[in-house]
Amino acid sequence: MQDKRYSFLCDYNEGAHPDILQAMIDTNDEQLEGYGEDAISLRAQDLIKEALQDKEAEVHFVSGGTQANYIVIASALRPYESVISASTGHIHVHETGAIEAKGHKINLIESPSGKLSPNQIKPVLEAHVDEHMVRPKLVYISNSTEIGAVYTKKELVALHEFCQANDLFLFMDGARLGSALMATGNDVKMSDLTRLTDACYIGGTKNGALIGEAIVLSNPVLKNYFRYHIKQNGGLLAKGRLLGIQFRTLFEKDLYYKNAAHSNAMAAKIGKALKEMGIDFLNEPISNQIFPILDNQIIDVLEETYQFYRWCVVDEKRTAIRLVTSWATPETQVKKLIKIIAEMIGEKSE
Amino acid sequence: MQDKRYSFLCDYNEGAHPDILQAMIDTNDEQLEGYGEDAISLRAQDLIKEALQDKEAEVHFVSGGTQANYIVIASALRPYESVISASTGHIHVHETGAIEAKGHKINLIESPSGKLSPNQIKPVLEAHVDEHMVRPKLVYISNSTEIGAVYTKKELVALHEFCQANDLFLFMDGARLGSALMATGNDVKMSDLTRLTDACYIGGTKNGALIGEAIVLSNPVLKNYFRYHIKQNGGLLAKGRLLGIQFRTLFEKDLYYKNAAHSNAMAAKIGKALKEMGIDFLNEPISNQIFPILDNQIIDVLEETYQFYRWCVVDEKRTAIRLVTSWATPETQVKKLIKIIAEMIGEKSE
Amino acid sequence: MQDKRYSFLCDYNEGAHPDILQAMIDTNDEQLEGYGEDAISLRAQDLIKEALQDKEAEVHFVSGGTQANYIVIASALRPYESVISASTGHIHVHETGAIEAKGHKINLIESPSGKLSPNQIKPVLEAHVDEHMVRPKLVYISNSTEIGAVYTKKELVALHEFCQANDLFLFMDGARLGSALMATGNDVKMSDLTRLTDACYIGGTKNGALIGEAIVLSNPVLKNYFRYHIKQNGGLLAKGRLLGIQFRTLFEKDLYYKNAAHSNAMAAKIGKALKEMGIDFLNEPISNQIFPILDNQIIDVLEETYQFYRWCVVDEKRTAIRLVTSWATPETQVKKLIKIIAEMIGEKSE
Amino acid sequence: MQDKRYSFLCDYNEGAHPDILQAMIDTNDEQLEGYGEDAISLRAQDLIKEALQDKEAEVHFVSGGTQANYIVIASALRPYESVISASTGHIHVHETGAIEAKGHKINLIESPSGKLSPNQIKPVLEAHVDEHMVRPKLVYISNSTEIGAVYTKKELVALHEFCQANDLFLFMDGARLGSALMATGNDVKMSDLTRLTDACYIGGTKNGALIGEAIVLSNPVLKNYFRYHIKQNGGLLAKGRLLGIQFRTLFEKDLYYKNAAHSNAMAAKIGKALKEMGIDFLNEPISNQIFPILDNQIIDVLEETYQFYRWCVVDEKRTAIRLVTSWATPETQVKKLIKIIAEMIGEKSE
Repeated sequence: MQDKRYSFLCDYNEGAHPDILQAMIDTNDEQLEGYGEDAISLRAQDLIKEALQDKEAEVHFVSGGTQANYIVIASALRPYESVISASTGHIHVHETGAIEAKGHKINLIESPSGKLSPNQIKPVLEAHVDEHMVRPKLVYISNSTEIGAVYTKKELVALHEFCQANDLFLFMDGARLGSALMATGNDVKMSDLTRLTDACYIGGTKNGALIGEAIVLSNPVLKNYFRYHIKQNGGLLAKGRLLGIQFRTLFEKDLYYKNAAHSNAMAAKIGKALKEMGIDFLNEPISNQIFPILDNQIIDVLEETYQFYRWCVVDEKRTAIRLVTSWATPETQVKKLIKIIAEMIGEKSE
Repeated sequence: MQDKRYSFLCDYNEGAHPDILQAMIDTNDEQLEGYGEDAISLRAQDLIKEALQDKEAEVHFVSGGTQANYIVIASALRPYESVISASTGHIHVHETGAIEAKGHKINLIESPSGKLSPNQIKPVLEAHVDEHMVRPKLVYISNSTEIGAVYTKKELVALHEFCQANDLFLFMDGARLGSALMATGNDVKMSDLTRLTDACYIGGTKNGALIGEAIVLSNPVLKNYFRYHIKQNGGLLAKGRLLGIQFRTLFEKDLYYKNAAHSNAMAAKIGKALKEMGIDFLNEPISNQIFPILDNQIIDVLEETYQFYRWCVVDEKRTAIRLVTSWATPETQVKKLIKIIAEMIGEKSE
Repeated sequence: MQDKRYSFLCDYNEGAHPDILQAMIDTNDEQLEGYGEDAISLRAQDLIKEALQDKEAEVHFVSGGTQANYIVIASALRPYESVISASTGHIHVHETGAIEAKGHKINLIESPSGKLSPNQIKPVLEAHVDEHMVRPKLVYISNSTEIGAVYTKKELVALHEFCQANDLFLFMDGARLGSALMATGNDVKMSDLTRLTDACYIGGTKNGALIGEAIVLSNPVLKNYFRYHIKQNGGLLAKGRLLGIQFRTLFEKDLYYKNAAHSNAMAAKIGKALKEMGIDFLNEPISNQIFPILDNQIIDVLEETYQFYRWCVVDEKRTAIRLVTSWATPETQVKKLIKIIAEMIGEKSE
Repeated sequence: MQDKRYSFLCDYNEGAHPDILQAMIDTNDEQLEGYGEDAISLRAQDLIKEALQDKEAEVHFVSGGTQANYIVIASALRPYESVISASTGHIHVHETGAIEAKGHKINLIESPSGKLSPNQIKPVLEAHVDEHMVRPKLVYISNSTEIGAVYTKKELVALHEFCQANDLFLFMDGARLGSALMATGNDVKMSDLTRLTDACYIGGTKNGALIGEAIVLSNPVLKNYFRYHIKQNGGLLAKGRLLGIQFRTLFEKDLYYKNAAHSNAMAAKIGKALKEMGIDFLNEPISNQIFPILDNQIIDVLEETYQFYRWCVVDEKRTAIRLVTSWATPETQVKKLIKIIAEMIGEKSE
């Protein structure tokens, strides 16, 4: 980056975990089948099914989150069916209308945490009663959410049961699933996912891979001809090995969890330190995205050393910023950031 | 590959050129901007513009050929406009209806070589006269074609002029552009491309990369908001560096041409040897895909040692097979293949 | 209707104005060209251009409002572009996701009256800044709105100028344009429309026709190949005369205005009478849709004699109902309705 | 028509059958429910089900053939599925890419008569084997075909059985179904349709109505939420009564068959007379479209009195023309046409 400041902008600013690069080198000389039907990709799929503790699950690798989202959603819906999403949902805010481009309306629900509950969804269903309106058919959730919140098992079970009772698919965007699973207080396990959702994806790009998301289909209806959907949408890589190698590495020795644990630990360190300084947060800091509310003067100074997003203005004097850590975040940067803020708080309080 | 036989099936069965892996290792520790706006991707774009000798060209990296094709085509067309393609065109045969999925009809032209000429296109235009029919607006060509043929400069100039005169875009699918540029008898240069087409793509996946095609836009009309099209279609990789690194490596030291030259040389060696044995070809063998016509008995024996496609039945006794070489094809395999065939021809002729 | 009660449900519950039926009889024996190129349709187009006082306008007839809306909008937009609409907009609420089915997101704005202003639109533009988001490109307004409000000329001029300054198309849904033009206090004229919008449609179905909306294109960009869009979307009727006859009749002797004037007069009579009884309205009753707020007991009794929609609950005791009048509403029914309400109010106040 | 010559151009150049106009007058004063849920439309649906002898069939009215075709086809297919059609099929040739605009490829089969048989379809299925290609799922046929041919019952049964055995939907475009059912030698009955197809439509526009096609769904899978598809595609008319009135009239007193019988009788008269003069036909003249092959000199003279299409050049001296008759074609015009041709043939043979 031309910008020399250390970046807490996003978890995709890093390279790959070294183990992944090594696996690419180790397998490079092999001739392998194309389009994800190679032995390495098959092995990676098996490892993920083991982690899910579900042999019937279907695993498909694609290159990015937008692609994963719109392929799953568009393949699940008939033309008149819609998606229910929090208004903070990535599919609504940051995917350039990809869902609509595939023909589907998104029914929005306001939610400060980015999480959805049956009570929020019920009125949407009740408002859609006849053929002059779309028919809501799929609930899209992100775990962790776009603002760092994480579903409890109880919440997920409630959503799952509600969706079952109302003929809705439940789809979980897991761009930051690793961080959610390793979050403070989380009680959802990888092995709960196929039981509690109809489809989800396990994000690789933001958790140590260079590229790649693993779509997991548990509802048999969604499995039909899924590779046709991937191919038609440009998601079937000729050298599918590239995706297989990365997920094999991430799941062979629990690297997926270790990466997320490190990422969360770095965020938690910042969170704990800032709380002790009396700093408020937009949300409870429990995953790898945290949103401290800082005096604008402190932010101005912090920006001399670090890159990060100003998330939203809180009041005249204060703004919430977003800090994102990753598998690669060095503890030295975390300590330095804390120190700078502490010094400024100290000066102010004197 | 579980199958232990050496594969001449396709040019995507290999890993990456070692220089590309090395570049990935060398840059891995850097924090870089996302979505292709990093310094490495910018450098790769500049190198390609230098190769094109066209500073005004716009270069965008995407992950695969189907994606490159449908994003360029769909972004160029209005809803009622159609694409003209040879009936062998990859967009028609092997992309699961991706063009139609974006809303556009493909007008087909029969062509044994897979190449198109103004005389073939003219009747298509004449047949589409009013609002009850689509309006042909873009000519899709592949160079080299899906069956190994290569356009001469004269042919390309004629197509270009015809398209200009008839308000048509000319788009070249360059999945195997490297092989075309280095083909026996080719007189088209990289620096001709932006002058003679409105858009094209430079294929990386089949020429040494693990992933990646470089879309080149020369017609200003096509440049508008092109990143919006890429993002909406799931083609904007978060860690865009992955594509940038590969193309920087391919174009920094002429690796793109060297890879293709090796690939073609291997195919030419087979072509020359088989011709000397009196074997016919479906097409003149000039690029990295060659189609010898062999006795079925010879094919049966050859399949014990090699993987390749049986392309089409020629007569009761003979079948054309497809052999594809790549940057990684070892000369030992080429020699061994020639030897096996030679021995069988020898036996037969005794 | 099996239901014998008189209906104030909607303005499409009636047949055609008798003059239209007579014109159908008078022209029935003629052989005419198909697809809207017949002499009657051409005459109807000319009459509308005269009414618009704009010879350059292009007029196209289609069969319904949903069709008019999505054909105009989808023909105007590129794939990554979106529509801005009030959240009450018909395209959002009651067209089964037709806009999204053509690939476009709708950016919603809350607006109690259903009208939009530059101040409401500005933040939407400011929030859409890069290729990760759609690009708002067309502002959709309804006049009269879905809840009976009407734009003043000043408001329309402000919207028009804002759209011009911000590279936005302005499109007016005129399903109830007649009623808007003849509304109490309206100062917009038919001859203002092509100057102040890029496209609009003049609704026939709800103003005396059996079928038919006249799309009016004033921005030259939108005129290109428009018949291709209509045909591709199933909107080009083989016997286009059916639409031409109706609009010729509506515009030959000002029937379009007379129908709307009668419709509004009937609504105004109810509005005035109820106001005099001290009844509140959700909106000022100025067009042919009015929303009196009545005690639930009164509504229960009223429903014994009349059909209408309960629009929204206002408080524990009161509900707003919607009464829609039309060119065919007999004054006797209006008087009877007023009388019933007056009697109940009288009883209550005793 | 400004052109004063009598027109044999198409069967949509006429007005409505007088009984239909009368029914519109008779029902005009009734208030009726919107969107096709009125009593008249329900009655029309019942009459059609009686004609089909199938109470389980679902009947939906839409305004035109292109709309009927693409709504049925798009509602039946998943995104990766395609339609098989003769290359003369209306959906391929004359609907401005409406099927592709809904996302689906059309697999074309060459067929001189415009009819399809299992033997022609089989190779298409065999060529589509994996996820790199679309999956053919629906067979589209027209009866009568675009060039006047009619399916025998044996042919239809064979197609039906083949489709059943191969998991294909069979859809019949019945824009000219009336003419097919009343054609010389036809042995298919209205009551065979729901047993032998999964969906079809009964064309009204070309058989006495001003507008309207009746979609008939027999396969239960296709019935789900069909009104949602119609509404989303702009096919649900607010004043649905307009369609109901016409079909009630056509099916109340066998007017549908009588109209077609007259139309065919007029064509047959021409066909018989011209055959007796030794004139050849492109196809056997059995329905209301006939294609006599005439000397160009005769055609030149005929065009002074009549409008019709020159269909295709047969040899240097002769061209096939298309003559289309309708429910409204007067016998006097038929006799006059025959006489003119007879005179010219007489002159030539002298």
